[in-house]
Amino acid sequence: MKYSPALQGLIEALRCLPGVGPKSAQRMALHLLERDREGAVELSQRLQVAVDRIGHCVQCRNLTELEVCEICADTRRDAATICVVETPADVLAVEQSGSYRGRYFVLMGHLSPIDGIGPEDLGLDRFERRVAEEGVAEVILATNPTVEGEATAYYLSDALRSRGVKVSRIAHGVPLGGELEYVDGSTLAHAFSGRRPLE
Amino acid sequence: MKYSPALQGLIEALRCLPGVGPKSAQRMALHLLERDREGAVELSQRLQVAVDRIGHCVQCRNLTELEVCEICADTRRDAATICVVETPADVLAVEQSGSYRGRYFVLMGHLSPIDGIGPEDLGLDRFERRVAEEGVAEVILATNPTVEGEATAYYLSDALRSRGVKVSRIAHGVPLGGELEYVDGSTLAHAFSGRRPLE
Repeated sequence: MKYSPALQGLIEALRCLPGVGPKSAQRMALHLLERDREGAVELSQRLQVAVDRIGHCVQCRNLTELEVCEICADTRRDAATICVVETPADVLAVEQSGSYRGRYFVLMGHLSPIDGIGPEDLGLDRFERRVAEEGVAEVILATNPTVEGEATAYYLSDALRSRGVKVSRIAHGVPLGGELEYVDGSTLAHAFSGRRPLE
Repeated sequence: MKYSPALQGLIEALRCLPGVGPKSAQRMALHLLERDREGAVELSQRLQVAVDRIGHCVQCRNLTELEVCEICADTRRDAATICVVETPADVLAVEQSGSYRGRYFVLMGHLSPIDGIGPEDLGLDRFERRVAEEGVAEVILATNPTVEGEATAYYLSDALRSRGVKVSRIAHGVPLGGELEYVDGSTLAHAFSGRRPLE
């Protein structure tokens, strides 16, 4: 015995969400139908609107409904500095830190030969040309400190330096509020090799 | 800074799902838009279909697209036995055990005076009349072994016994494959008080 077709269909469709297995999908479907039908209708509409309207910014590739996203269109931001991140969530994290006033370039992934993701898939060819043409002074590489993120940063620094652009990498080390005792070895190694003289 | 309105709206709408907080909602929205737009459209449609079509079976109150659900409409099932459960998921669990061939009554909750849920909200008044009128021989109470579930079972057994119907409660004790060592005290107490002579 299974649930009725419409219920079964909803349960299966919910599994497209990351981290949702058969049991959670069942719990979600029953919750929506028993307790939150308004929420379900709202979610249905929001999904449709999001898929219909959201595309990529032609300049930075971030998700947006506009042709050029708000950050790229903001003339008060420093156009000579571009921060390269992997995902739209990374843009939000940097924005929330309030420490950056330049522009972004969102890779929407990282180099991963094993998955067949090369420089063109990340728009790096166009990005390199844009950097050279628009007179960008500095590119800050803020890809994740994972193997793929580091490889992507290395590839970009190589490609951009030959075009005479200043390239920097964000610092990796002990996070604020972190305790040395609980920080992993690779992070500590980074923290030591990246030490700076106190002035 | 926030995401664009359509993206922000989707993230907020996803929070109607149980167990989904702001971070998961953000992850889900970005996953759908970056990697699974087809899944998002499918989910949007399934939600709409489910909300439009799924209602309650007029006999057992289970979720169904039909007026009378498949189980209630199945004449091969024993109409003289009714198993009372709290949720549609419980019906599925009992069905999957393959140990029951009667019908169901789904409370869609349990008695909970603190939340203002009384017997009428669970359809118990109509259920009692139905049991008396249709010549039901046995009602098996399979509500959860929680305070509210037990209270609901107690209320029903009280109401039904006065109408001359046999009322039973499913057994509670050590689960199969469970080890005594790891079973909690209340379950063990149930297992001892519910012991049966070996024949």
